[in-house]
Amino acid sequence: MTTIAIKERISSANSVAVQRMMDSDPFLVDVDLAGKRIPNLKSKMILHAGPPIEWEDMSGTLRGAILGAILLEKWADSIKEAEELVVLKKIEFDSCHNHSSVGPMAGVISPNMPVFVIKDRLSQNYAYTNFNEGLGKALRFGAYDEEVLTKLNWMRENLFKFLKIILQKLEKEKGGIGLKSIISQALQMGDECHNRNQAGTLLFLKEIMPYIFSYLDRKQANELFSFISSNNHFFLNLVMAASKCMADQAHNIEYSTIVTAIARNGTEVGIRISGLGDQWFTDKAPIPEGLYFPGYSSKDANPDIGDSTITETVGLGGAAMAASPSIVKFVGGTIKDIQEMTDRFRRITITQNKYYIIPFAEFEGTPTGIDIRKIMQSGLTPKANTGIAHKTPGIGQIGAGIVTLPIKPFKEALMSYARTYKI
Amino acid sequence: MTTIAIKERISSANSVAVQRMMDSDPFLVDVDLAGKRIPNLKSKMILHAGPPIEWEDMSGTLRGAILGAILLEKWADSIKEAEELVVLKKIEFDSCHNHSSVGPMAGVISPNMPVFVIKDRLSQNYAYTNFNEGLGKALRFGAYDEEVLTKLNWMRENLFKFLKIILQKLEKEKGGIGLKSIISQALQMGDECHNRNQAGTLLFLKEIMPYIFSYLDRKQANELFSFISSNNHFFLNLVMAASKCMADQAHNIEYSTIVTAIARNGTEVGIRISGLGDQWFTDKAPIPEGLYFPGYSSKDANPDIGDSTITETVGLGGAAMAASPSIVKFVGGTIKDIQEMTDRFRRITITQNKYYIIPFAEFEGTPTGIDIRKIMQSGLTPKANTGIAHKTPGIGQIGAGIVTLPIKPFKEALMSYARTYKI
Repeated sequence: MTTIAIKERISSANSVAVQRMMDSDPFLVDVDLAGKRIPNLKSKMILHAGPPIEWEDMSGTLRGAILGAILLEKWADSIKEAEELVVLKKIEFDSCHNHSSVGPMAGVISPNMPVFVIKDRLSQNYAYTNFNEGLGKALRFGAYDEEVLTKLNWMRENLFKFLKIILQKLEKEKGGIGLKSIISQALQMGDECHNRNQAGTLLFLKEIMPYIFSYLDRKQANELFSFISSNNHFFLNLVMAASKCMADQAHNIEYSTIVTAIARNGTEVGIRISGLGDQWFTDKAPIPEGLYFPGYSSKDANPDIGDSTITETVGLGGAAMAASPSIVKFVGGTIKDIQEMTDRFRRITITQNKYYIIPFAEFEGTPTGIDIRKIMQSGLTPKANTGIAHKTPGIGQIGAGIVTLPIKPFKEALMSYARTYKI
Repeated sequence: MTTIAIKERISSANSVAVQRMMDSDPFLVDVDLAGKRIPNLKSKMILHAGPPIEWEDMSGTLRGAILGAILLEKWADSIKEAEELVVLKKIEFDSCHNHSSVGPMAGVISPNMPVFVIKDRLSQNYAYTNFNEGLGKALRFGAYDEEVLTKLNWMRENLFKFLKIILQKLEKEKGGIGLKSIISQALQMGDECHNRNQAGTLLFLKEIMPYIFSYLDRKQANELFSFISSNNHFFLNLVMAASKCMADQAHNIEYSTIVTAIARNGTEVGIRISGLGDQWFTDKAPIPEGLYFPGYSSKDANPDIGDSTITETVGLGGAAMAASPSIVKFVGGTIKDIQEMTDRFRRITITQNKYYIIPFAEFEGTPTGIDIRKIMQSGLTPKANTGIAHKTPGIGQIGAGIVTLPIKPFKEALMSYARTYKI
């Protein structure tokens, strides 16, 4: 092919990829136990955020979350026993992304954890994510004490049951809850849908409310409502699974240079490219810059971790930052910074989102479809919102901030692309 | 007094007025029938928006709403009979503002209508407002057909009863619902709290939700939730009554040149000044500029009407416009327009609100405390958001837009001030 022909081929592949990404129409349709629904999740397997990684290379945050999950599964009775199991290779690990799943921070999903089941109406494909525990001391930040496990057990015993009742009715009556509609409304209400999900959580509550009245008893209703309404990040996991559906629609399109996953396991950050299959291109995960809780600083921080950058991959989070002025109180910075963050994405993406609109940017769509060619041309990498976990297992969240992705994965992806397509 | 001494006296009076305005802390504490709670509301009296006005001078919108209220009260069986009662002077009219009350558009409140009871924790004073019926064909837009009256009857029979149950429990347990807190959160979520109350309505629902579960049966819960959640303007009336509490706190302070009421009755727009007691300074109400529903234009529009400009009086609505980019889809204009609208208020107010913050304006407070001196110096009058009603009784809403207040009332107020204080 001539250079012009190749350019046209890439451009047309990217256009298809991003159209599919935008037209994906994810609905929350059910909740179930991970082991029953997530494809190829084996009985002694634990999924985690980011690219695949072995125990030896895992950061403190991820190790903490995995040990907690082993206790939760009752595969061991103590942290010591749990560590022995791991060292004896009795537990298998894999990346959430390899199982149509995503999870924030450590992103740990084990077979007996409840998960949300999201169905893409465009492709009939599914994506899965765990339930958000709330901020502070939480498994996803590497904490695993009694309080953390008690809450997770309550979530499996009760929250799961309540949501199951509601979603089965809701699915039957309305085909589930349309997540794209909630996300686009939330963008009009100051969420960027990664680190701020206040409106999204309220809009989600509004959807399920009539089912709470109608199908739960008073005690159940109060417990469910109190859990969800006290956690402004509850909707995050649903945004992530919706984003996973969208990104998957753009994946595996020959010649496409569009980024279809960005994820961190606490040691490495990795990306996937539509035209390059399931290969991860990685680099060392950076330490986020941000606002720390009192008593903590960047020297306590675990390197960046979590699948939540799937939101940036589809035009949310950092890409939609200009929609969310209030977020600077949570992650630091000024109004100018958030506008620059969205502008930065405009320089490395191929289009404006049709559905995700930023009112303050004169109703322009969010920058969508990150193109590795544009990253290499501009030298600019995506900036993402993120939570910050303590690097020592067992402690939990210590802040929130912003991370600038390293350029190496994008560079290596482009080199691999050149080899693959013989350009 | 010397000129300097007078200036200092005015400045200190204004400072006291606006501090009190901001520190007023209105809580929704109860619902009741208007006739039982609103001070001096006589048994055959109907309250209306704006300055006092006689039937002969009333616009079509206000006449329509009053005739509807007479039918609702069963003082007459037909519109013809209702008109006869009015012409025979059997019905007394007065301004809501003279009875610690406010109502959007026609603002009609009759003795058997249910009202919200708002208590200011700072002063222990009360304010009252009616329940919002929703958009379209509604009494407050001058419509009075069977559909309108059926809904109003349902509101009195059911909505009132449900809210009574909830608020009595809520008042006992928490002292009611803090409205200032909801309003300040809503400003972070894209409401300007006059023509956009999407977040406010959701946040209000979040507050009452646990009481819906706990104290209503399933049918009641569903009816209440469905009514409130399907009307994004439900929270408007509560913002208005909260604003009335705030404005009242700033009223009647000797030497103060701060505006403490802006209200329109559909014929005239009137203002009150803190240091000039209960006198209204008026001019002809203008026709708003805005977006009309299909089939209607400005020639169908009633002149501007409603007490809802009490929101602009305390730093919301037009003053907070820059917080609400999405509103331009409802009232017209661009992002630049909304920023200019807030900037216009900055030139005619004396301070930034301590509690009402605009994230996009680098977290500056909303412009608060309109000073008639600044209006006369700059030649700029407040711009307000507003609904647009058909000028013919019985039709209803035909659009929404923005109105620029005439300068005459401010000019006359300043002249009256000079006479009163012998300056």
